[in-house]
Amino acid sequence: MNRAAIERAAHLAATRPHFLRRTPLWQLAGSALGLPCAEVWLKLEHLQVSGSFKARGMLHRLLSHPIPPAGVIVASGGNAGIATAAAARELGVRCEVFVPTVCSAAKQAKLRELGADVVVTGAVYAEALQACLARQAQTGALLTHAYDQPEVVAGAGTLAREIEAQGGGVPDSVLVSVGGGGLIAGITAWLEDRSRVVALEPELAPTLHRAREAGVPVDVDVSGVAADSLGARRIGAIAWDVTQRWVEQSILLPDAAIRDAQLWLWKEMKLAVEPAAALGLAALQSGAYVPRSDERVCLVVCGANVDPATLG
Amino acid sequence: MNRAAIERAAHLAATRPHFLRRTPLWQLAGSALGLPCAEVWLKLEHLQVSGSFKARGMLHRLLSHPIPPAGVIVASGGNAGIATAAAARELGVRCEVFVPTVCSAAKQAKLRELGADVVVTGAVYAEALQACLARQAQTGALLTHAYDQPEVVAGAGTLAREIEAQGGGVPDSVLVSVGGGGLIAGITAWLEDRSRVVALEPELAPTLHRAREAGVPVDVDVSGVAADSLGARRIGAIAWDVTQRWVEQSILLPDAAIRDAQLWLWKEMKLAVEPAAALGLAALQSGAYVPRSDERVCLVVCGANVDPATLG
Repeated sequence: MNRAAIERAAHLAATRPHFLRRTPLWQLAGSALGLPCAEVWLKLEHLQVSGSFKARGMLHRLLSHPIPPAGVIVASGGNAGIATAAAARELGVRCEVFVPTVCSAAKQAKLRELGADVVVTGAVYAEALQACLARQAQTGALLTHAYDQPEVVAGAGTLAREIEAQGGGVPDSVLVSVGGGGLIAGITAWLEDRSRVVALEPELAPTLHRAREAGVPVDVDVSGVAADSLGARRIGAIAWDVTQRWVEQSILLPDAAIRDAQLWLWKEMKLAVEPAAALGLAALQSGAYVPRSDERVCLVVCGANVDPATLG
Repeated sequence: MNRAAIERAAHLAATRPHFLRRTPLWQLAGSALGLPCAEVWLKLEHLQVSGSFKARGMLHRLLSHPIPPAGVIVASGGNAGIATAAAARELGVRCEVFVPTVCSAAKQAKLRELGADVVVTGAVYAEALQACLARQAQTGALLTHAYDQPEVVAGAGTLAREIEAQGGGVPDSVLVSVGGGGLIAGITAWLEDRSRVVALEPELAPTLHRAREAGVPVDVDVSGVAADSLGARRIGAIAWDVTQRWVEQSILLPDAAIRDAQLWLWKEMKLAVEPAAALGLAALQSGAYVPRSDERVCLVVCGANVDPATLG
């Protein structure tokens, strides 16, 4: 994973401006958010098509391979599934999405609305994944993975390239939420040591943090307010490689701080985001991450797949 | 009202970057919204402090006058009241807000949270206004008007100046929602004939449209989904002057088209906005305004004071 791969992903993405969006970079004085740093850059990636950054990686995966007659296939009831279904619709190819029975009716409806064939099977995600892999072996459909495929990571990396172009340079630091690690892997692979990339996870979904403690990726239990989008059980292999090389700081945040930041983003900034998108602000507001007074901090607001009724 | 006044307002505003926000201008291919024009520019002014563009005008009004010991006073249960209270808090001065008894408990709570003294009086807005004016005569507080004061209009005009700077030039057309007309007056005074400014109103709140038919401002009945923020009964005198000079087209939109556009903005773009902010998209999606294929159309997304539970 490197900058050249991300450049290629960006050039492929640029062929689909009616689908992928160049999301706004909102540069504010830190004081506008009550924060003791020079600038806060909010990358409003929750406004990306499909409601999260995942569309970048999924479109790139699909554009990088010939699509078999069976189309594409994925196991995910969350943002990765929605993004895969949206990208498949954009390319006019078939899409099967495997979800466990715990996947809400609303999410299933969203996937069907995007034209996906939804297969509900298994009590938990691992069982849905197993059924998905068996089906893929049978049909030969192109499999997309939520975070641990090179094309998916390179697609996510285009977000950092965009921040640099929009900001007229890189920020001093970038605070990134980590689940399986596709986003932080892409962002870090683009920035390398030019910005300080800080990994943020909920205490209740600490895949990278526990891996760093163990010195190797390990399975963890996941739960809590952000488990929907940050609930991978183990850090991806690509993310592990990239973050071990470049990321110095990994911070865990309590659910209460994440939820407070999510509600504050709606109340004070009118940004309607999912909990996973609020970790950066939670780290600053809770004091878990303390910026320098002259620091330009970038927060990646990564997803908006939230029931707005929960923001009131 | 002219460009020099707006320049002055912009320079005053620039002294308060921790309060007033330079909101994002989101430039998209028209096809990204399924629209048959070259570009759509979304000015995300619903992300302005206080949740609407009104903060620009209210801060400017307050910075343009010495504030008497009695502070500032306004009659409004909507965005103008919230923006006045927020600007008063920013300057550390007292604020009295008069609202009629129909003003919801949630809005009263919001005003109190901003430090305002809320006076609930009268069955309808006109009665609250009368009580407000009587009180102002007694205390000498600085009165802010929702749309018909030069400083308020010049403040709103800074929004168009910002669009021009961010867009690297002016768009071909700007679609603007009209209630009392403060926003369109400011925008048009800045752009003059350099862009086509189009006035949009709900069929159920047609202050400018009826004035144009009558050849003079007249009182109209107001109701419907956007009455909360576009429910002025008569176009302001400043807006009347400016729009008569520069605005060629005034379009009325049915509530159903406005509501559809509001819901679409949440569902497809993840922008949580109030009905008044959806008129531009409603005009395009309903075909009430038909852009040229090479047109760059700017939509002013003017407010986010919405109960998010109504977006689901």
